[in-house]
Amino acid sequence: MYRSNTCGELNASHIGQEVTLSGWIQKIRDKGFVAWIDLRDRYGITQLVFDEDRTSKELLELTRTLGRETVIQIKGEVIERASKNKNIPTGEIEVLVSKLTVLNESLLPPFTIEDETDGGEDIRMKYRYLDIRRNPVKDNLIFRHKVSMEVRKYLSDQGFIDVETPYLIKSTPEGARDFVVPSRMNEGQFYALPQSPQTFKQLLMVGGMDKYFQIVKCFRDEDLRADRQPEFTQIDCEMAFVEQEDILNTFEGLTKHLLKEIKGIEADNFPRMTFDEAMKRYGNDKPDIRFGMEFGKLNKVAQHKDFNVFNSAELVVGIAVPGGNSYTRKEIDKLTDWLKRPQVGALGMVYCRCNEDGTYKSSVDKFYDQEDLGKWAEVTGANAGDLICVLSGDTTKVRAQLSALRMEMAERLGLRKADEFAPLWVIDFPLLELDEETGNYHAMHHPFTSPKPGQLELLDTNPGEVKANAYDLVLNGNEIGGGSIRIHDKEIQATMFKHLGFTPEEAKAQFGFLMDAFQYGAPPHGGIAFGLDRLVSILGGQETIRDFIAFPKNNSGRDVMIDAPANLDEEQLKELNLKLGI
Amino acid sequence: MYRSNTCGELNASHIGQEVTLSGWIQKIRDKGFVAWIDLRDRYGITQLVFDEDRTSKELLELTRTLGRETVIQIKGEVIERASKNKNIPTGEIEVLVSKLTVLNESLLPPFTIEDETDGGEDIRMKYRYLDIRRNPVKDNLIFRHKVSMEVRKYLSDQGFIDVETPYLIKSTPEGARDFVVPSRMNEGQFYALPQSPQTFKQLLMVGGMDKYFQIVKCFRDEDLRADRQPEFTQIDCEMAFVEQEDILNTFEGLTKHLLKEIKGIEADNFPRMTFDEAMKRYGNDKPDIRFGMEFGKLNKVAQHKDFNVFNSAELVVGIAVPGGNSYTRKEIDKLTDWLKRPQVGALGMVYCRCNEDGTYKSSVDKFYDQEDLGKWAEVTGANAGDLICVLSGDTTKVRAQLSALRMEMAERLGLRKADEFAPLWVIDFPLLELDEETGNYHAMHHPFTSPKPGQLELLDTNPGEVKANAYDLVLNGNEIGGGSIRIHDKEIQATMFKHLGFTPEEAKAQFGFLMDAFQYGAPPHGGIAFGLDRLVSILGGQETIRDFIAFPKNNSGRDVMIDAPANLDEEQLKELNLKLGI
Repeated sequence: MYRSNTCGELNASHIGQEVTLSGWIQKIRDKGFVAWIDLRDRYGITQLVFDEDRTSKELLELTRTLGRETVIQIKGEVIERASKNKNIPTGEIEVLVSKLTVLNESLLPPFTIEDETDGGEDIRMKYRYLDIRRNPVKDNLIFRHKVSMEVRKYLSDQGFIDVETPYLIKSTPEGARDFVVPSRMNEGQFYALPQSPQTFKQLLMVGGMDKYFQIVKCFRDEDLRADRQPEFTQIDCEMAFVEQEDILNTFEGLTKHLLKEIKGIEADNFPRMTFDEAMKRYGNDKPDIRFGMEFGKLNKVAQHKDFNVFNSAELVVGIAVPGGNSYTRKEIDKLTDWLKRPQVGALGMVYCRCNEDGTYKSSVDKFYDQEDLGKWAEVTGANAGDLICVLSGDTTKVRAQLSALRMEMAERLGLRKADEFAPLWVIDFPLLELDEETGNYHAMHHPFTSPKPGQLELLDTNPGEVKANAYDLVLNGNEIGGGSIRIHDKEIQATMFKHLGFTPEEAKAQFGFLMDAFQYGAPPHGGIAFGLDRLVSILGGQETIRDFIAFPKNNSGRDVMIDAPANLDEEQLKELNLKLGI
Repeated sequence: MYRSNTCGELNASHIGQEVTLSGWIQKIRDKGFVAWIDLRDRYGITQLVFDEDRTSKELLELTRTLGRETVIQIKGEVIERASKNKNIPTGEIEVLVSKLTVLNESLLPPFTIEDETDGGEDIRMKYRYLDIRRNPVKDNLIFRHKVSMEVRKYLSDQGFIDVETPYLIKSTPEGARDFVVPSRMNEGQFYALPQSPQTFKQLLMVGGMDKYFQIVKCFRDEDLRADRQPEFTQIDCEMAFVEQEDILNTFEGLTKHLLKEIKGIEADNFPRMTFDEAMKRYGNDKPDIRFGMEFGKLNKVAQHKDFNVFNSAELVVGIAVPGGNSYTRKEIDKLTDWLKRPQVGALGMVYCRCNEDGTYKSSVDKFYDQEDLGKWAEVTGANAGDLICVLSGDTTKVRAQLSALRMEMAERLGLRKADEFAPLWVIDFPLLELDEETGNYHAMHHPFTSPKPGQLELLDTNPGEVKANAYDLVLNGNEIGGGSIRIHDKEIQATMFKHLGFTPEEAKAQFGFLMDAFQYGAPPHGGIAFGLDRLVSILGGQETIRDFIAFPKNNSGRDVMIDAPANLDEEQLKELNLKLGI
C-alpha cells in the first residue's frame, strides 16, 4: 500500500490524521527555515510542509536534494494551513511530513509540467507520457472516458448490444485506401483493416441482432490532412426494422443525453435541414448555426447592371458581416487576400459598407446605386454598421469560398462559442456525387445507402438528382455523425453496384457475402456512425482531435514517441514472403 | 415505424390491442381451415393466427406461399390463446392477423435456424449471419455484451479510466510473431498490430493516469491451435502506486462482481497458491480445483523396490480416480492407450485397484506387496473403490501427462460442472523459463515483469530460480487473467534485457522510449490482463471461445464468410512498394 489517500482528497475534516501519500513533486519552495513541496497525482495537489521546528534536520536537508517530477512517498500528519488556498479542494490543509522516501528519480523534464507549458507540439509528442501529466491533456482523456461510458450506458439501456466485429477483414478497393496486413499462413494473401465495420453491422442485422453498437477503431490510409488520424474511433450503430425517422429520434436521444450528462445542457429538439437548403443558406453541408450571416443570393438584384464579373457568374452571393463596417480599407484588402489564398481560391471580393446613416458605399459604386445596394442589404439581412461581402462564380466553388469566409469571420468575431451547442440534422443528401476529375459518379455516403423511395429510376437518366435516405448530425459546424437507411434488397444492391461502375464479377468478388446474405431474409435496416474523436473534442469545447487522443500520430502518420512505423528485419519479411521495392 | 411491439413482449395484458409486429417466419403450421405462424425476432416468438372464420381468404392463401425465414410485417389484434404455452413469455396470447406485408423473401437456409441445428461447423461459419439468428449463438453474444458492460461499469466506478491505445504501433521481434502493416507514406517501413497494449499502459502510468483499463483487440500471428484466434480481446488494466496485494484485491473484486451480477453467485475470498505448489499438487499452473484427485508423490514409497522403471525416474506420481476400480481391464488398457497418444506422450501407466474389501491389486504386483500399495493409497488419498494411476519419468513431462489424465478423468466423471465456479490465484511464478531447444532463458510473462525483491542477484547464478511478482487468475482450470508488478527502474530494466539476450543497442532500438520514460519519474506500477473471450465462455458455462465471438476465424486464420485474407490487386501492392515472393 503506497498511500492511504490521494493528493486530491484531504481537507479540514482530515486534520490530525496520519496519512501516507505518493506522487510527483510539482514544485518546491525553500525559505531556509521552512520548505514546501506541492505533491501531485492524478487527483490533485497536496501541500507538504517541512520546517526547522518540527522536521528533522536530515529530512529538511533531503528536500533540498529533490528535483521536479521526482516520485516520492511521504508519511505525515494533516494540519491546518496558515494561509489557505480557496482555489483547490486541499487548500485548507497541508501535511507535516515525518518520513520521505524517494520512489524514483527524475531527470529535468524537457518541458514544464504546467497547464501552460513551454514545450512545443513536437517535443510534447515525443514525450507524450510527460505531456499526459499536464492537466489539460489528462483532463481531456478523462473527459473522453466519461463520454464513452455515457454512450455505452445510454445505448445499452436502449437495448443495443455491443458486438465486436473483426479487425482482420478483406480489402475493398472502393472508397478510401485500406491498410493491409500480409497473412503468413495464407501465402501471398492479405487482410485489410476495416475502414468501418459497415458490412459486418449489416450482417448482424441480417442475423437478427436488431440493435447493435460498438465503439471501434477504424483505419484509413489517406494522405493526411491536418487533424486527420490514420486510425480513428467510431461510435458505430445499426438498427433493424427502422425508417429514417426512428434513427433520427434514437440518436437525437443519445446526443441529448450526452449534452445533459456531460455538459449539463437540456437541448431542445434538433432542427432539420435538407442538404439543398444547407447549401443554399450556408454553402456547406455541415453549417454552424450558432450564428447568422446566412447567404443572400444576389443574382436577381446584382446581375444585368453592366458589371460583367457578376453578369457572367452562375451564382452571386453575399453575407452581412455584423459590425464589419468598422474594417479599414486595409483590413478589407487583407481579407480579400485571405480569400485569394489557394486554400480558399476566390478570385476576388466585392464589398459594400452599410454606414450608420443608412447610406451604402461599395467597391463597385460605378455599377450600383444606393437603391441597388439597399436591395443587397435586404437580401443579405445587413444592418447599419455591417459589411456585405459578395463572391461570384461557379455555384459549387463560390459557396465553398463564401462558407470559408463566413466561418473565418465568425471565428474573428467570437461567434463560435465553445460553450454553446447547436446540433442540426442535415437530411436528404444526394445519393451520388460527381467526381469532376474522372466524370464518374461515386457514392456520397457508401454503396449500401438506399435511394429515396421511387427515385431508383432516376439513376439512369439523372443520377446526380437522386436523393438518398442519408443524414448527418452536425454540431457547431462539424459533422459528428452520419448514416443512412441501407439497401436490403439484393437486386437494388446489384443495381447500385452497376451504377458505381462495378462489373457483376467485381461486385460478387468483393461483396458477394453481403448480397448472398440479402437472399436469406434481410430485414429493412439502417444506422449511423459518430466520429468519437471529433464528438469528444467539440463537447470538450475544442476542435483539435489530437488533444483528445492519448497517443496520436503526426501528419505523416508517424508515432514520434515510439518511432513507428519502422523497418522490419529480413527474417520477418521472408516469413511473410514479401520483398521491398517494385 | 415497422412495429409497435417486439415479438417477445406481448402477454395477457395486451389482449384486445391492435399491434404491428415485424420479424422472421420461424415455423408455419397449416391445418387447412386454420394456420399459425411463429414470428421470431431477437426478443422472442409470437404466434400469429389465421383462420377461415376471421381471416380473409386472400390472406389465408398468402400464408401458404410463405417460406421459413421470410421477413414479414403484420398488423392484428392480440387475442387470448386457446391452448396456452407456459414455456414462453408470449404463450398466453396470439395475434389474429388482419394485414400481412412481405418485407423480404428468403431462400431456404442451408441449415435449420433452431437451437439444435442440422448444420455442421463449416457451413454455419460460412453463413454466420444465419447462425447468429439461432438462440444459442445470439444469447452468447448478448451474454458477452453484458459481461463487457459490467466490467466497464465496475472498473469505472473504481476510478479506472478507459484510454484507447494505438493499433498501429511498432514491431518487436521478442515474444510471439507480430502482424505487420506496410506504411505507404513511410516507404519500406511497417507498423505492427499490438500483441497487447503493454508498453502503452505502462507509459500511461508514467504519465500519471493512475488507473487505466481498456477492452481491446490484440493480435498474434501464431500457428493456430484449436480454439485460438489471431485476433482476440483483452480486458487490459494497469495501476500506479500498487503492490501485488493491491492488484489481487482489486481484480478479485472485479471477478466477484461479475460472478454476482452475471451468475448470481456470492463468491468467497479466492484461495491463493504458489506456482510451485500448483505444480506439485496438480502438475499444472492453472489447476481446476473444483475436484480433488490431487497428485501424490510416490518416490519415497515406490522407489528402491526392484521396479527399475520407477527407480530410474525423477518423479513417480499418482492420482486416485474416484470409483475407478469399476474399470475393466480393457477400459484401463484404453486409458493407457489414451495416455500414450502423442498429444499426451506418456510411455505407459502403472495402476493399482483399491478393492472394496481393503485389498489392492496392481499392475506391478511382482514388485509391491499389500503394505507397499497401502502406502500408495495413503499418499494419493485413495479410498476403497478407487483406481490409483501412476506415471513416472522426468518431472516436467510426467506432471503434464498426469495433469492431462486428471482433467480427462474429471471430464469423464462429470466433475467439471459448468455451473460451479472455483477461482484461484496462482502467484510467485518464475521470472524466466528455459527454452529447452535453444538453451536460452526467456521471460515467462514478459520482459517488463519485476523479480521478487532481493532476487535480482540470483539472475547471474541461478536464473531459473528467480521468482517474479507475477500472478495468474485461474477459473475452473483456465487462466483467465495474468499480470505482474512491472519494473519501473531503468537500470533493472536494462539488466533484464541483458539477461534475455538483448544487446544494449537492440534494447534501445525496440524499447528505448520506455527506458527513456523510466528516467522521468516512473511510479511503481503493475497490472493484469484478462482474456475476455475465455472469461466470457467460462462464465457462460462453455469452453469454446469461438461460440462467443460474432465472426470468428477458422484454424487457418481465415474468415470463411467474407473469404479473407485475399489477394491484393497489383495496384495496391505497387503503392505499398511491395513485391510477393522471396
